[in-house]
This record gives sequence, structure tokens and C-alpha cells, in this order.
Amino acid sequence: MTRPYNFSAGPATMPTEVLAQAASEMLDWPDASGKGCGIGVMEMSHRGKEFMSICAHAEAALRSLLAVPAHFKILFMQGGGLAENAIVPMNLSALRAQPGQRGQTDFVLTGSWSQKSYLEAQRYSDTHLAASAQVSGFTDIPAPESWQLRPGASYVHICSNETIHGVEFHALPDLKSMGSDAALVVDFSSQVASRPMDWGRVGLAFGGAQKNLGPAGLTVVVVREDLLGHALAICPSAFNYETVAANGSMYNTPPTYAIYMAGLVFDWLQRQGGIAAMEEQNIAKAQALYQAIDSSGLYFNPVAARWRSRMNVPFFLRNETLNDAFLSGASAAGLLQLKGHKSVGGMRASLYNAMPLSGVQALVAFMQDFERHRA
Amino acid sequence: MTRPYNFSAGPATMPTEVLAQAASEMLDWPDASGKGCGIGVMEMSHRGKEFMSICAHAEAALRSLLAVPAHFKILFMQGGGLAENAIVPMNLSALRAQPGQRGQTDFVLTGSWSQKSYLEAQRYSDTHLAASAQVSGFTDIPAPESWQLRPGASYVHICSNETIHGVEFHALPDLKSMGSDAALVVDFSSQVASRPMDWGRVGLAFGGAQKNLGPAGLTVVVVREDLLGHALAICPSAFNYETVAANGSMYNTPPTYAIYMAGLVFDWLQRQGGIAAMEEQNIAKAQALYQAIDSSGLYFNPVAARWRSRMNVPFFLRNETLNDAFLSGASAAGLLQLKGHKSVGGMRASLYNAMPLSGVQALVAFMQDFERHRA
Repeated sequence: MTRPYNFSAGPATMPTEVLAQAASEMLDWPDASGKGCGIGVMEMSHRGKEFMSICAHAEAALRSLLAVPAHFKILFMQGGGLAENAIVPMNLSALRAQPGQRGQTDFVLTGSWSQKSYLEAQRYSDTHLAASAQVSGFTDIPAPESWQLRPGASYVHICSNETIHGVEFHALPDLKSMGSDAALVVDFSSQVASRPMDWGRVGLAFGGAQKNLGPAGLTVVVVREDLLGHALAICPSAFNYETVAANGSMYNTPPTYAIYMAGLVFDWLQRQGGIAAMEEQNIAKAQALYQAIDSSGLYFNPVAARWRSRMNVPFFLRNETLNDAFLSGASAAGLLQLKGHKSVGGMRASLYNAMPLSGVQALVAFMQDFERHRA
Repeated sequence: MTRPYNFSAGPATMPTEVLAQAASEMLDWPDASGKGCGIGVMEMSHRGKEFMSICAHAEAALRSLLAVPAHFKILFMQGGGLAENAIVPMNLSALRAQPGQRGQTDFVLTGSWSQKSYLEAQRYSDTHLAASAQVSGFTDIPAPESWQLRPGASYVHICSNETIHGVEFHALPDLKSMGSDAALVVDFSSQVASRPMDWGRVGLAFGGAQKNLGPAGLTVVVVREDLLGHALAICPSAFNYETVAANGSMYNTPPTYAIYMAGLVFDWLQRQGGIAAMEEQNIAKAQALYQAIDSSGLYFNPVAARWRSRMNVPFFLRNETLNDAFLSGASAAGLLQLKGHKSVGGMRASLYNAMPLSGVQALVAFMQDFERHRA
């Protein structure tokens, strides 16, 4: 079966075999022995043994894939990255606060997502810009040596891959070596599972699932245990990490079907060779596309080469009057969702794990053909 | 295809034909003309025309089914009823508050869910118990004439059907006629779409979808427009009703697949004859089961007859040593998820819209047979 290549930034393309398995199990979920239980996953009580096993499997598979150490909790929540922009400071801003004072939170601005996080945290904490790439139009990442970190900050927030601006941290900052005792908070929504993660540098990482992990509606939080227990009084119980952790992500009814789908994706990732194999392929995909862009006279990408994202590749046509023709031609060639985010314009190709190299090759071939015949 | 009858309290049984349709569209969603778009719903950008049409359809179908007046907004959110216990007071408690004062919120306690709402609201507001059925063990509902409503309250909260205790408001209170200017807030998680709703008495209604509307992970909020715009400063943007409404439920990435599934359920409800037809069937199902319980020597239900829930029927065996035999016999007979909530014990049969009358008849037959041969 031939399916078009879907370059959506999220919700994003899913592995065909994962979707096919979900479809086949929709009315009757079989356990590991292959025996059907008579009902579908969507209909299962979250407290029943069937769903408990699905959820435990998803958590264990993610822990194994990402090599999450035992002293981190994996939480399955709701609300997406945007809600986490509030939930993180509600839980962590008081970590190192003086009694009666608002907690200090430091932010590194590298694009739209870190900016949203920074603004939202102002509701709950004394925020501070440790560094910002705004002057460059978010086309690079300020060198960690230049960051102005506050000694009393509870945490430092970064977005490890900016979905809209296409800049990516290719190594996480080592706050300890920078003289900071703050926890590192990483929004890894569009980076998670695309490469290994250096947990030794991380306090908390969070992300919406709808890029590399599964469907929209599931949020994954990975948090070091010693950071739990400092939530503000105004933190809703359903979003208190300590409460969620103590109840195995079942304090409120979890997004059961999304957890099941994510578990299928984790199994698929394992079958592909795990995160190391995915990283190798992601490097190859990104290289192929950036090379095509850089070697063309029509297309360009404004991001400094060393900070270019492997996952989200924004690019522009030097002749913008061709944008519509490019998009409609691409769509006719089975290359979908290439329109850039409305805030920056142009084009964007998202190359998450489920996008095969053949998809990038097809895109490159189309781009070259379009440049030859239409530009 | 024969499927077992699943009496789970939620996530709950779904209509077989809805699941079958979802399975058939998993890899390639067809629009109204039947033409496939090449990708599945789970993979669609929430900003694309395909998903926008799915979401608009779901909202319009729900508005039509429930006869929601035009001056109410329908919001698709995340977090479930439990998160709404915080989100409602964060949005509405200041409605009628004096400057610098905490808003007043009044609660009617009729079971576990209203109790949770009451406790959570204490984080955000000056709460007050207008009435409580706790002394009766939550087996009735205090008569509205006895409620102690405060003149300055921003809202009065009720849970219109208590999923655990099995008591239900068969008419909503008319606060106006009781001399109150407060808005009525209704947690209708386990009642929505089982019967018509008297919107003239309602300020806001909310519910998790996982009982009568669709999968877990989707929360439906129906709110009168004039109540928007009073959120506390500490309300997360993603949960600010005004923001969510202004962005057509797409301020943060919505739980797209759950919205799609709910839309399929709404279409199915329409095909069954709409809410009036469902109510008729729900009355018939509840009557059949309560009659079997009341006419038996083994089973009993403790709820006062006039407050008994149509949706959730808790019942107990007078000889509790038979509980395990009852449950395993039921399961063997294809009657699943009949164990009562751990906080109250016994049994519970949830009779949501997707449970056919034949399921209740099969349950009654099993109960009678069990009583005859085992008790």
C-alpha cells in the first residue's frame, strides 16, 4: 500500500504498521499470548488488568528506549507542552525559593516555544532571561558560556528543539560545570526519541507525544525523583507531579488510547533498532535535505549550520511568488503538509522518526525538479 | 460478531459500529464524499482543513444533539473531570467576588465526585457546603429547598450523576427561583447525552468524554458566554476558557483522535434517534435492572428510589462471600466489569448509551440464575 509522505510538524505521520496493528485490534485487544479479551483498548477501564498491563508496558518500553535511569519517574499526563509551561513552574519554581518569596526561574530563548514557556512562567515565578537569540531572529543558540544564570534559580528552562524556528541543541548544557545548582528543564516535545538523551544533565524533561511518540492528547514527563514534592498550593491535584507519580499516572483517568498507541510506537522503535538506529537515520535524512537546500539557487535555510534541527527543517523560496505552486505541486506528488508555520512563513519539512529516508529523497527530487522547471 | 457486554464505569463500552468505522479509516480518512485523503486522523495537523472539518463537525453535532443554545460555547479540552475541579474555580470563582477577596463557591455534596470538586476548589476560592448527603451515606439528594445558598456566591456546583454512589439529579435545580444569582455548574461526566439538558438553568457543564461521549483524554465544557473573562491570574493559559473559546479549542493542540471518535459517537447517537430516543432506552434499561434487584432476595441497592441513577447502578449481594463467584460467573457469561468501585465495594453496572437493552437483559438473566442456583 502506497501512502503519501506527510511532513506535518505535529500531530505527525505515524508508522504504517503501527496504525495497521491498532486498526486490527480496535474491537478486540489480544494480550501477549494472542488471545482476544473481547473488547477494544478504548473501552477498557483504566483500573482493569488489561489496561494496567498496556500502560506498564508502555512505560517500561519508553524507559528502556530512552535509557531513563531508575531515579527518574515517567509520567503520562494530559495538556501537551503548552499546559506544561504552567505545570512545570507550578511544580518546580519553589524548589530553591526562600520562604515567602516567589521562586526564581531562568530561561534561554531560542524560538517560539521557549518564548511561550518564559511568558507563562511569569504567572508563577520570578522569571529571568539568561540568554536570548531573539536579535538573530532565532537562527542560532547562544553559547552556554554566555548565559547569565542566577545562583538562586530553581531551574533553567530550554527547548531542546524549536519546532517552528528549526534550531536544535545538539548537546544539553552541563549546568553543574557552569557553576549552577539549578535543575535543567528540557522541553523535548519535538526532539524526544530522535537521539539519545544525557539524563545526567537533566532535572525534568517534558513533551507532547504528537511528534515522535504517538497521538496528540498524551504528554510525557520524565522527572528526577528528588524534584518532587515542591508544588505550589495553587497547583491542581491532577497536575501535581508528586500525586501523579504516586498514583502511577492514574490519579485522574489517563488518555488510555493514546498511551496504547504510544506503546505500539515504542515497540516499533525497538524493532527499528532503538534510538541509536533512529539517530543514524535522522542524521542521514537531515543531511540529505539540508544539502539539497544549500546546493540550490532557489531554496535557503536561515539557521546557523551548527544549530540546525534534524527534526524540523524550515526553508524558504527566494522567489516567494512560487510558494503556492510549490505547495500544490508537492501535494500532487504525494508530499503533504510542507507549508511553514504561519508565524514565519515559507516551508517546513518535519522529519520525525516515522518519516523514512525515502520520503526525504522524494522531497529532494521534487524540489530539484521544481527548481529546474518552475523557478 | 458477538462481543461481551462491558459494564465498565469509564472508560466504557463504545458502539461496535463506531469502532469498526474508526478501524476502517485508521490509515486513510475519507471525507464526506468518500474520497480518502491518504493519511489517518491521528496523523493530521490540527490546523489542516481535514481535521478542522472533523472538529467543526463534532462540535456542531454535539450542539445539535444536546440542543445547546447559541450563547453557550462548546470547548474541547484535556484533563478530565478531575482537572476541571481546579479549572472551573480558576475560571469562575471570581465572577462575583469583591475586589481583593477570594470568590465564594457553594457545593452540594451527593457523593465522591462532588466531594472531590469541593475539596479541590478550596485551593482557589472561599468554599461552602450548601447541602450534603454524607449523613445518609450518599443514598439520596438533599431537597433544593433545604440548600443554604450564599447570596454572594459566584457559582453553585453539583454533580448531576454520581458515578460511584449511583445517585442522579433527575431535574436540575432552578437557582433563580431559589433566589440565587449564582451560576449553576454541573459536572455531567456520567450523565451527558443520556437525557435532555435544561440549559436555561445552567451556567457551565463539564465532563470527561469516557462514559457517554467517546474515549478518555477528551473533556467537554459547555459554558455560557457571559461567564467568560474572569479567570484568576494563576489560571494556565491552556485552561483559560476565554482563551480556549477564542481559539476554537485549538489554543493548545487538542486531543485530535479523541475528538474524531466523539464525532463518530455523536453521529451514531443521531442515527439512534438522538437524545430523546436514548433517554427512552436508558429508562427502560434502568427499570429492568432496578426491578430485578428490588424483586430479589439476594441483591439490593441502597439508593432512595427517586434519586437512583439511570447510568450507574451499584448493587450488593446480601451474602458478600458470594461476590467472587458472582463476578467470575458473570465474566464467563460475557458480562464484564461488574465489580463495584473499591471505595464502596459490591457490584456496579454502568448502563451508558452504548449498552443495549439486550445487555441489561442478559445481566438480569444471569443475576436471576445465579440467585437460584448459588445463593
